Amino acid sequence: MVKILIHGCNGRMGQMITGLIKEDDQVEVAAGVDAFTGITNTYPVFGNIQSCDVKADVVIDFSNAGAVGGVLDYCVENQVPVVLCTTGLSGEQLEKMREASGKVAVLKSANMSMGINLLLKLLKDAVKVLGPAGYDIELVERHHNQKLDSPSGTALALADSMNDAMNHEYTYVYDRSQVRQKREKKEMGISAVRGGTIVGDHEVIFAGPDEVIEFKHTAYSRSVFGKGAVEAAKFLAGKPAGMYDMSDVIQF
Amino acid sequence: MVKILIHGCNGRMGQMITGLIKEDDQVEVAAGVDAFTGITNTYPVFGNIQSCDVKADVVIDFSNAGAVGGVLDYCVENQVPVVLCTTGLSGEQLEKMREASGKVAVLKSANMSMGINLLLKLLKDAVKVLGPAGYDIELVERHHNQKLDSPSGTALALADSMNDAMNHEYTYVYDRSQVRQKREKKEMGISAVRGGTIVGDHEVIFAGPDEVIEFKHTAYSRSVFGKGAVEAAKFLAGKPAGMYDMSDVIQF
Amino acid sequence: MVKILIHGCNGRMGQMITGLIKEDDQVEVAAGVDAFTGITNTYPVFGNIQSCDVKADVVIDFSNAGAVGGVLDYCVENQVPVVLCTTGLSGEQLEKMREASGKVAVLKSANMSMGINLLLKLLKDAVKVLGPAGYDIELVERHHNQKLDSPSGTALALADSMNDAMNHEYTYVYDRSQVRQKREKKEMGISAVRGGTIVGDHEVIFAGPDEVIEFKHTAYSRSVFGKGAVEAAKFLAGKPAGMYDMSDVIQF
Amino acid sequence: MVKILIHGCNGRMGQMITGLIKEDDQVEVAAGVDAFTGITNTYPVFGNIQSCDVKADVVIDFSNAGAVGGVLDYCVENQVPVVLCTTGLSGEQLEKMREASGKVAVLKSANMSMGINLLLKLLKDAVKVLGPAGYDIELVERHHNQKLDSPSGTALALADSMNDAMNHEYTYVYDRSQVRQKREKKEMGISAVRGGTIVGDHEVIFAGPDEVIEFKHTAYSRSVFGKGAVEAAKFLAGKPAGMYDMSDVIQF
Repeated sequence: MVKILIHGCNGRMGQMITGLIKEDDQVEVAAGVDAFTGITNTYPVFGNIQSCDVKADVVIDFSNAGAVGGVLDYCVENQVPVVLCTTGLSGEQLEKMREASGKVAVLKSANMSMGINLLLKLLKDAVKVLGPAGYDIELVERHHNQKLDSPSGTALALADSMNDAMNHEYTYVYDRSQVRQKREKKEMGISAVRGGTIVGDHEVIFAGPDEVIEFKHTAYSRSVFGKGAVEAAKFLAGKPAGMYDMSDVIQF
Repeated sequence: MVKILIHGCNGRMGQMITGLIKEDDQVEVAAGVDAFTGITNTYPVFGNIQSCDVKADVVIDFSNAGAVGGVLDYCVENQVPVVLCTTGLSGEQLEKMREASGKVAVLKSANMSMGINLLLKLLKDAVKVLGPAGYDIELVERHHNQKLDSPSGTALALADSMNDAMNHEYTYVYDRSQVRQKREKKEMGISAVRGGTIVGDHEVIFAGPDEVIEFKHTAYSRSVFGKGAVEAAKFLAGKPAGMYDMSDVIQF
Repeated sequence: MVKILIHGCNGRMGQMITGLIKEDDQVEVAAGVDAFTGITNTYPVFGNIQSCDVKADVVIDFSNAGAVGGVLDYCVENQVPVVLCTTGLSGEQLEKMREASGKVAVLKSANMSMGINLLLKLLKDAVKVLGPAGYDIELVERHHNQKLDSPSGTALALADSMNDAMNHEYTYVYDRSQVRQKREKKEMGISAVRGGTIVGDHEVIFAGPDEVIEFKHTAYSRSVFGKGAVEAAKFLAGKPAGMYDMSDVIQF
Repeated sequence: MVKILIHGCNGRMGQMITGLIKEDDQVEVAAGVDAFTGITNTYPVFGNIQSCDVKADVVIDFSNAGAVGGVLDYCVENQVPVVLCTTGLSGEQLEKMREASGKVAVLKSANMSMGINLLLKLLKDAVKVLGPAGYDIELVERHHNQKLDSPSGTALALADSMNDAMNHEYTYVYDRSQVRQKREKKEMGISAVRGGTIVGDHEVIFAGPDEVIEFKHTAYSRSVFGKGAVEAAKFLAGKPAGMYDMSDVIQF
């Protein structure tokens, strides 16, 4: 049973992780840390990580950039691996994270979703088979109407993952309405749909002679990252010092 | 039982229509016309329409532009309604068609698919409900990698159908990768996917608060037009002179 | 500008509706009612509806069955139409609702989603065209792994809506693995997928010769009912006494 | 350039393969064999394989079970590897095939589709990650309304591929309408949709906390097997004696 310390246990993600761990008989919450104390948990909660005297096998951090320094200090000192899910770290904070990873296991990923990280790996294999066989590759992503950038970072990561596996022979095409010509073989078309409150759908399409193979990921909420964090914690417990990411967790 | 004369009965579409009619107990083939005689049919086949002495209730024409004049003459003379599925008619041929429609029922549509023509109607109703309620509208179409134009004419027809119903308040957007900004309310995004031998997929997406409603059409071959022709023939039998199109066939 | 009184304004749905109204320039919140006062709103909030002295054009009720009696009394007395979204009403409470509808406009629906209610109407039209033309109808629904019943009530409602339009000539089939035979023409196959935390997907498939037409609804959270409630409120403001449901709101 | 001998070159699949090879600059047709001579090809065509004096690197056979013996004799004698796509072989013919594979490379697969064979491999990796992490697995397949068996052999092959990778811990469930209970963790639900002329769609769904990962395959015609045959021929040229199947061709 892997014992987890949840740093930021009373936030939305912390509570979501609490729920996921409850349903998983390979892990348990040893303790939580949160400045906000309005929620009653089944585990002890400390106001800050320095005052926590419960031993855990791994820390999951879903707090804020300002608190990350303290978490790293605690993990190095107590030799507890840490899954860092807090975003928006400064250059200085990232540097401190890299230093800490020389002394303890630290895992951080741009996207914590199990599904997206699995696809990032599987698509490398798929493209090595279907690319040389002449199948065309297209991506379609859908996001809510408040999103500023297009295509999404995740869509580009999926495309890059395939392109890396193929010596970067593909170029990305975002619009075909301005030219009247056939598709080039080494294009990847990337289309962005925007509407409503769609959390994030990603579809990778391989189209060949009379067949289409599709890989699709649908996120129903940002909670999708919580599941990835729990799986990352299971993986990281007991690991030696070093920087890890979700691709290490996804092992066939 | 509606008796049909298939003009161009031994071509791919003619044979396909022959098969569809066989499975439909409301129609039967009275006769066929085709210059090519290498196929044995269960109905009499004439080398040209002028030599045909079998009476039919309606003609389905899937031949070539050059033969359309003869078909129209025959239909006017014998007072038989005609479903014209031949494409690529010249201005002169179209003019002759309009003249003929003063004396006999003539049906012609840009797209003969039952599904697309049904969606053209239903989407008008959908947009009247969901548009004012603030749902965002997006279209995604997919076609084979030899297609020159983008988006497809059918995608534009679907968009226009909705825009017509809403006093043309929407503008079409084909690419969002060049700007960093939120989607405008009165946009319709239209994305085009190109790959393999995809015959033609069209998807219309209405995205609102935590819900998405989709209308999707998939064509598996060009034979999809054959079914529309048979339904059009059933509809047209016995109708008075005039120009008709598939929207007349789609009656709720 | 339609002025709305939200009964149960500080619950999850009440807050969600508050957000939706803020983005909609045809409506505004006149006041809220909630026993819980821990949330600060931009509108006045009363501890119970009897003490509310702000005039509204319509009430949206998302509270609990026990409170519905008081809401109905208030609405009759003040002649304010009411959208009742509270579920689990007893027979006695439903009887009181019907009585109230003799004196004021009351709207209640089994499913408040705009998308599902739109599909319930559009599918009646679709089936009238595609059914007689011989297209096969199938439904696939997906829900989370905690759901006890199968297929979902909404899937059955969609099937019934089509079957009603066709004089109940269809029978429903839930399993084809136990027989070795072709599909009958007048079947509707209904398949239920269960997994993860899927909120609720519904797909209606019309399959004909070389074409497939699909109608799909995806819910991302239960908040989807909030949007329907706001649209219902706009519709109900100013309406005469009577029982209404969402099909009245969906007007082409 | 791999030189291919097409046995059965003037049948539908033979002509389809001829077209695919023309577009692929790694292969060329050295010669064809067909008893039917009504089609003019750009390569020499022989009436039977024994009279063929053109050397090829590999034979693709799309003919009929009765002809397979002659093909195997020719391939052993001339030491040419063979891709056997002919179906319906008798026990005796299969035995002869196995004998021949002791002397020359022979490739045969239940399903020749590149996409399905790729998924059979990728799903083994996916299930090893998502299964232990608690994601639920469901399959939905769609086929035409003339299909007698349900679920399809391909759906069962996909399910078995995953189950094999997980020590057969899953049981298959075909119907949930007859019980009122939650889904068991180690179920795989398999749903079969039947309608129209759908060639064959297969969808594998992994549903976890707030995310869904889908793998989908769509066939537009049986020609999908032709592409697999050409890729198999490229792979098999120069290979030593032995039995091979499509999983050997799919190499990451």
